[in-house]
Amino acid sequence: MNRYFIEKETKYHGYELSPHWLYRNFGLKGDSIAAFIGECEVKLGEMVDIEDVINNEPIYSDKMLSFIEENFHSTLKEAVFRQRLLAGIVRDMIKERFPEAKVVRDGDDVYLNDKKLTVSIATKSMTSTLIHFGINVDPANAPVKAAGLETDLGITNVKEFALELMERYNREVEDIDFALTKVRGAGE
Amino acid sequence: MNRYFIEKETKYHGYELSPHWLYRNFGLKGDSIAAFIGECEVKLGEMVDIEDVINNEPIYSDKMLSFIEENFHSTLKEAVFRQRLLAGIVRDMIKERFPEAKVVRDGDDVYLNDKKLTVSIATKSMTSTLIHFGINVDPANAPVKAAGLETDLGITNVKEFALELMERYNREVEDIDFALTKVRGAGE
Amino acid sequence: MNRYFIEKETKYHGYELSPHWLYRNFGLKGDSIAAFIGECEVKLGEMVDIEDVINNEPIYSDKMLSFIEENFHSTLKEAVFRQRLLAGIVRDMIKERFPEAKVVRDGDDVYLNDKKLTVSIATKSMTSTLIHFGINVDPANAPVKAAGLETDLGITNVKEFALELMERYNREVEDIDFALTKVRGAGE
Amino acid sequence: MNRYFIEKETKYHGYELSPHWLYRNFGLKGDSIAAFIGECEVKLGEMVDIEDVINNEPIYSDKMLSFIEENFHSTLKEAVFRQRLLAGIVRDMIKERFPEAKVVRDGDDVYLNDKKLTVSIATKSMTSTLIHFGINVDPANAPVKAAGLETDLGITNVKEFALELMERYNREVEDIDFALTKVRGAGE
Amino acid sequence: MNRYFIEKETKYHGYELSPHWLYRNFGLKGDSIAAFIGECEVKLGEMVDIEDVINNEPIYSDKMLSFIEENFHSTLKEAVFRQRLLAGIVRDMIKERFPEAKVVRDGDDVYLNDKKLTVSIATKSMTSTLIHFGINVDPANAPVKAAGLETDLGITNVKEFALELMERYNREVEDIDFALTKVRGAGE
Amino acid sequence: MNRYFIEKETKYHGYELSPHWLYRNFGLKGDSIAAFIGECEVKLGEMVDIEDVINNEPIYSDKMLSFIEENFHSTLKEAVFRQRLLAGIVRDMIKERFPEAKVVRDGDDVYLNDKKLTVSIATKSMTSTLIHFGINVDPANAPVKAAGLETDLGITNVKEFALELMERYNREVEDIDFALTKVRGAGE
Repeated sequence: MNRYFIEKETKYHGYELSPHWLYRNFGLKGDSIAAFIGECEVKLGEMVDIEDVINNEPIYSDKMLSFIEENFHSTLKEAVFRQRLLAGIVRDMIKERFPEAKVVRDGDDVYLNDKKLTVSIATKSMTSTLIHFGINVDPANAPVKAAGLETDLGITNVKEFALELMERYNREVEDIDFALTKVRGAGE
Repeated sequence: MNRYFIEKETKYHGYELSPHWLYRNFGLKGDSIAAFIGECEVKLGEMVDIEDVINNEPIYSDKMLSFIEENFHSTLKEAVFRQRLLAGIVRDMIKERFPEAKVVRDGDDVYLNDKKLTVSIATKSMTSTLIHFGINVDPANAPVKAAGLETDLGITNVKEFALELMERYNREVEDIDFALTKVRGAGE
Repeated sequence: MNRYFIEKETKYHGYELSPHWLYRNFGLKGDSIAAFIGECEVKLGEMVDIEDVINNEPIYSDKMLSFIEENFHSTLKEAVFRQRLLAGIVRDMIKERFPEAKVVRDGDDVYLNDKKLTVSIATKSMTSTLIHFGINVDPANAPVKAAGLETDLGITNVKEFALELMERYNREVEDIDFALTKVRGAGE
Repeated sequence: MNRYFIEKETKYHGYELSPHWLYRNFGLKGDSIAAFIGECEVKLGEMVDIEDVINNEPIYSDKMLSFIEENFHSTLKEAVFRQRLLAGIVRDMIKERFPEAKVVRDGDDVYLNDKKLTVSIATKSMTSTLIHFGINVDPANAPVKAAGLETDLGITNVKEFALELMERYNREVEDIDFALTKVRGAGE
Repeated sequence: MNRYFIEKETKYHGYELSPHWLYRNFGLKGDSIAAFIGECEVKLGEMVDIEDVINNEPIYSDKMLSFIEENFHSTLKEAVFRQRLLAGIVRDMIKERFPEAKVVRDGDDVYLNDKKLTVSIATKSMTSTLIHFGINVDPANAPVKAAGLETDLGITNVKEFALELMERYNREVEDIDFALTKVRGAGE
Repeated sequence: MNRYFIEKETKYHGYELSPHWLYRNFGLKGDSIAAFIGECEVKLGEMVDIEDVINNEPIYSDKMLSFIEENFHSTLKEAVFRQRLLAGIVRDMIKERFPEAKVVRDGDDVYLNDKKLTVSIATKSMTSTLIHFGINVDPANAPVKAAGLETDLGITNVKEFALELMERYNREVEDIDFALTKVRGAGE
């Protein structure tokens, strides 16, 4: 899959989670993931997570590292599994850097010291699946108790973190794909 | 999904990874996972992992905690993702018990102190997907450098470990399924 | 699947046949069916059945027992099959109560004394399939010759009828699912 | 779908439920259903229904009207739904001929006076789904309490019954297919 | 599949590539292809090809033979394959009539003397796949170097050309479908 | 997809059309196509084309250029479409080299001067689709009127022909895949 870092500071509003946003804006053709940094403000009207809408839980963070992935070869269920891979890799990357950190993955969320570090959603369009995965850098003004890469862990080279995450994610996705091709079917 | 612990010591030969083995032997109807403890010896002729066959890598362990899952509603790709969930949960459960342990998930494998703790394979039959996930209890006579729950970590209540693993696995699988049902599709 | 009876009198306009209507309004998570009683008036602009739109056939009934089912794990084709199950169960339930009744299923319709007792449609959204199945209670002002549970059969405990129908429907859907899991594949 | 009546008396052993049996033996290309009359004796080793194998329930009937359907465009789930259509049509056809008959469909079975009139199974091969649906004509020597079209209802023109059943089944299958093509998708 | 020629001169704007356009306007039920002749003017806002939108390439031709196909049983990928079949048949039909013509298929395009003879796109709706395939008759005012059936080859009986193309296309689609039903699965 | 030319002269018997033959013998992981040259002799017992078996038509050719493709991400229907792509490319490559040649594609066959130049079949295994596509080099002893690349066209550099064919095939398969990712869905 294409991997891309958007250098320009970019606010996330929610509508970026739409088909061909990566293609139209950054020329990324086919399965792709891109990262960008900026304010995150998703109002209820833009949310695709009905649970959050019902619970009246908009999303806000002063500074977030966001990933948008669009995949044209997967089911929604696979996209939900991939969310969990992303969360697991974030957990691992933090643990490797800070072995003492209290960091856990719970479903598609990552918590740091019992504070929410990430937000995530997976959805589908007519021709693709789409994932937003966001990691707070500075969670100021978040509506819930939240942690941030910079504020809580002192990680300032966020771009480097993003590149490594996309690289490891891509490797695992390819490894999963290889697993399908090396196995004999089972008979009764 | 049904969860079942087979009390009787049971050797794993590889042919247990076949459709309806759980139904025929334990009456488990529909999607199910079962655990059992015993010697593990998979000869090349029984292996479904072509990569291992090519590399001439049979599997052996004196005492293994094995899980067999059969699922009638999933693709092989989803089964491969579920393998990784299992591996991740094993990692988390060890980390929670032994915060100092050097335990990492690498794909569908778990390593403890750089020694192989687990084996795993996912395949499909005409009507289902099948997973074998094995955790060494005592890896004596394994053909590779291997670790065991009992020998390396002192875990003796292996059944309890198995029950918790199945319970957490089931919860995450249900949570993933719920994620599919709560999200609005995305338009252009 | 969740089964739910909406006690409040509820008019059916057609727009209720939309994704997450059951979740948003009644908190029903995942695959669910709900029943309600009230006026039914579906104008052409709300109809999803193109055949009816082309034939200029809006739907009206003074009092209808309506079912809305949303399923996140099925194809549209399976939803069409399930419509026929619903119609068949309605037929059976009437026949059991009134052995002399002239009641027949014709596709997804049920006719009582050659008058239309039911309306039904199945469609799909981006993430689910949706079924509306309506049984006239009092078909006054229907645009076609129609029968009603109360007016033609004297059934006044419509809620009880609804609960039994949902219970039998759910049992048959589960039984169908089990059928998938108990069968050996066939080789040449 | 092709519809074909095999004039020659033909015993059913179970192995006829295999891919391309209709093509190889009767030249039927593509989706097809064929009917034949003869003894029915399915030994445990030929059974694809694991439930029957576990319960040690072989099948026998002195004279049975059997249908074999092979479909190259359907899922196993759809085949299971079609079994139920077949059972429902059998029920209707008997009821139309004998309004007083006590005949009920229960899942994929039809019972006449609480005696088993039919047997049925659906399975899949690598490239198709397969259904066997059998209606006892003379259930002599059946291992369970069974009824027969001829012995219990006096139906002697079994071929005519078979032709009408295949014709009505085909019409309903086509009607279901049309339902998929006439409906607008539903948005949120 | 239904094949239909629309006698009335009909302009193509792009919005005709929508679900049930053939059913609503011409009564064509189920999988269908229809042809018509007229001006072709697709403005950017109506285009479904994001690549053309990004490149700011609207479509225009004074006189075009257009085909609209709607199929309710195919994936988008199959529709893309069918586009290439259509292009290949156009190439063959020209070559048979004019053995000296320099006509080549390149993906889903056909070029005549290095000038663009055709335009094509495949997309999907909630319940179907849709193809537009257009062959210039008189490419006057086209935004690119283009050829036409009439202007470059002298073909004036365009309707006859359309009917033959639909007939050959239908035959090949049926032949492909038969190929699925005549083959034995392969074991390891 | 991997592309590979097997230098060693290799006879084709039919059993090479099986899952993981490319992986086991040539180390090709995942979607792959390989070419080889040698005698071709497929006896009836090895044939997967039931039509040929019924018609008692074994395959023989003294010297054939064979391609085996295994794809782990496609349906059988897509494999059948890809067969036709292969046939079309063969036709184009001959036409480019010999503009006067009378070469036509008919379904998945290519004919040269009304003699059969190619054989082809597509099938599926439990985890993949498989294609054999063979082009006669010297069709001596073929059971039907057949042509050969070398005997009828004087093409002696068969390896070069094979490499170009695989390269063009791969490009078109990738182009088709891109087509899926650049198109907006169509609404009603």
